[in-house]
Amino acid sequence: MAQGNLYIISAPSGAGKSSLISALLKDNHKMKVSVSHTTRSPRPGEVEGEHYYFVSVEQFEQLIDNDVFLEYAKVFGGNYYGTSLPMIEKSLAQGIDVFLDIDWQGAQQIREKVPDVKSIFILPPSLVELERRLIGRGQDSEEVILDRMAKAQDEMSHYTEYDYVVVNDDFEQALTDIRHILSAEQLKTRTQSLRYQGLITELLAK
Amino acid sequence: MAQGNLYIISAPSGAGKSSLISALLKDNHKMKVSVSHTTRSPRPGEVEGEHYYFVSVEQFEQLIDNDVFLEYAKVFGGNYYGTSLPMIEKSLAQGIDVFLDIDWQGAQQIREKVPDVKSIFILPPSLVELERRLIGRGQDSEEVILDRMAKAQDEMSHYTEYDYVVVNDDFEQALTDIRHILSAEQLKTRTQSLRYQGLITELLAK
Repeated sequence: MAQGNLYIISAPSGAGKSSLISALLKDNHKMKVSVSHTTRSPRPGEVEGEHYYFVSVEQFEQLIDNDVFLEYAKVFGGNYYGTSLPMIEKSLAQGIDVFLDIDWQGAQQIREKVPDVKSIFILPPSLVELERRLIGRGQDSEEVILDRMAKAQDEMSHYTEYDYVVVNDDFEQALTDIRHILSAEQLKTRTQSLRYQGLITELLAK
Repeated sequence: MAQGNLYIISAPSGAGKSSLISALLKDNHKMKVSVSHTTRSPRPGEVEGEHYYFVSVEQFEQLIDNDVFLEYAKVFGGNYYGTSLPMIEKSLAQGIDVFLDIDWQGAQQIREKVPDVKSIFILPPSLVELERRLIGRGQDSEEVILDRMAKAQDEMSHYTEYDYVVVNDDFEQALTDIRHILSAEQLKTRTQSLRYQGLITELLAK
């Protein structure tokens, strides 16, 4: 029985992480992105169970007490966001790789609880390109843009905590890189020992 | 500056390791197989520096004293075989992946000296296929074949000491698997930090 791997994928805003994840989800490779719980209200177009599980503060705190979350945080503004464990474990047992789309702080929490989690950090191809993407349509004040830049640099300064680094210069190449990581991780001895349990028993039988 | 990775590749006789290595050497991917030193005489067709470095027992023992070998062994019959470090280091510094085609005992010696060596174990697709390959042309005695089988099983019993396991059922798939391993290892944070030193310094500059 194949076993899926759990991945953390982090990036500064503007590195193209969401587009990469969307493209990966279209692959034949068995993978899914973990859906987080949140206490904030759904925005127009957001679908329960697809973008988030929308719960009340009381429900969220009950889930905390029940130790359901792999990681959670209360963000500026008072809303909770969290990653629940039971659904992840179910997918992994079905041989599905699960992606957690979280920042370096969430990543640190996950690593403590799941030491064998794999993590990928996406970097933009240049400072000019990062600034261009952070400036966006040019309708924001310089202060807002400087704040975004500081946040991006703060996120990037944690790249060394990750197992893999993918530079999103050429989109297709970055996609190929991530596919090779997923493929190689499936070839790790622990995973292969489970997948080929029958063969290995046969080969080693005296 | 890119940095190559050092790989150990082991397999029982009959798993197809040599064919896989030959095919990989034809790739564009920068890789080479380490050439061992030996004290045995060249066989017809063997080329100095390509198949082996042929040296005398005195020369070999001098190289041992100079601590040139990553691993070496004196095999049944009294001949020495060894893997020398300086040429490997030169290739790695040039961004070339180096393969060591050795058995589990050599692998254990290497791991002690080079903790971040990566290792790949090749398994045959079935016991029937392994036996078929070990029987060969059917001209050997049952005793010889049983001895080969015992040796193959002894080698395979060490597969758990390796980082990756590739099952050589479909040759092209096994080749693809190894290519993905090489690619993913090049995406590890330590290697990428060296390759993208300039970019990372630029992205993190305040």
